Amino acid sequence: MTALVESFGLAVRQLREAKDWSQEQLAERSQLNRSYVGEVERGRVIPSIVTAQKLAFALEVNIAGLFAQCEVIEQQRTIKRINLAAIAS
Amino acid sequence: MTALVESFGLAVRQLREAKDWSQEQLAERSQLNRSYVGEVERGRVIPSIVTAQKLAFALEVNIAGLFAQCEVIEQQRTIKRINLAAIAS
Repeated sequence: MTALVESFGLAVRQLREAKDWSQEQLAERSQLNRSYVGEVERGRVIPSIVTAQKLAFALEVNIAGLFAQCEVIEQQRTIKRINLAAIAS
Repeated sequence: MTALVESFGLAVRQLREAKDWSQEQLAERSQLNRSYVGEVERGRVIPSIVTAQKLAFALEVNIAGLFAQCEVIEQQRTIKRINLAAIAS
């Protein structure tokens, strides 16, 4: 799986948890299957842009905002890797 | 097909044409099939978020920027529909 798929899943989870919703509640609001939402959050499936839009709409962000959140997460992960590498060296 | 799939295709086409690239050139740069790029631009297929990222990368925009462009296109289309409805009434 690509880094994007992982960061997308993390972004969805972060936004869902910020709303204090269960995966079931997000699944209902986005008209997706509960187990599918779990797979998305764990970065195990590659969602289509239509699925991304459904999730963004349910999470009350626009789709560009959802992907901007993915980019923030990717940057944070890169910084974490650099810091870990610095500690290890 | 959803409005997003159509506006995504239009955004890709606009950005490609702004670079004066053929579909073939975009296909090569994004490591996608030429006819698949054509289908995406015509809104005939639903791309995955990974395909969207490949296209964004090839077009030298970030994925959030590509979806922001989709939203601009959707707004323009809505305004056009309202204007047409006003002329017709």
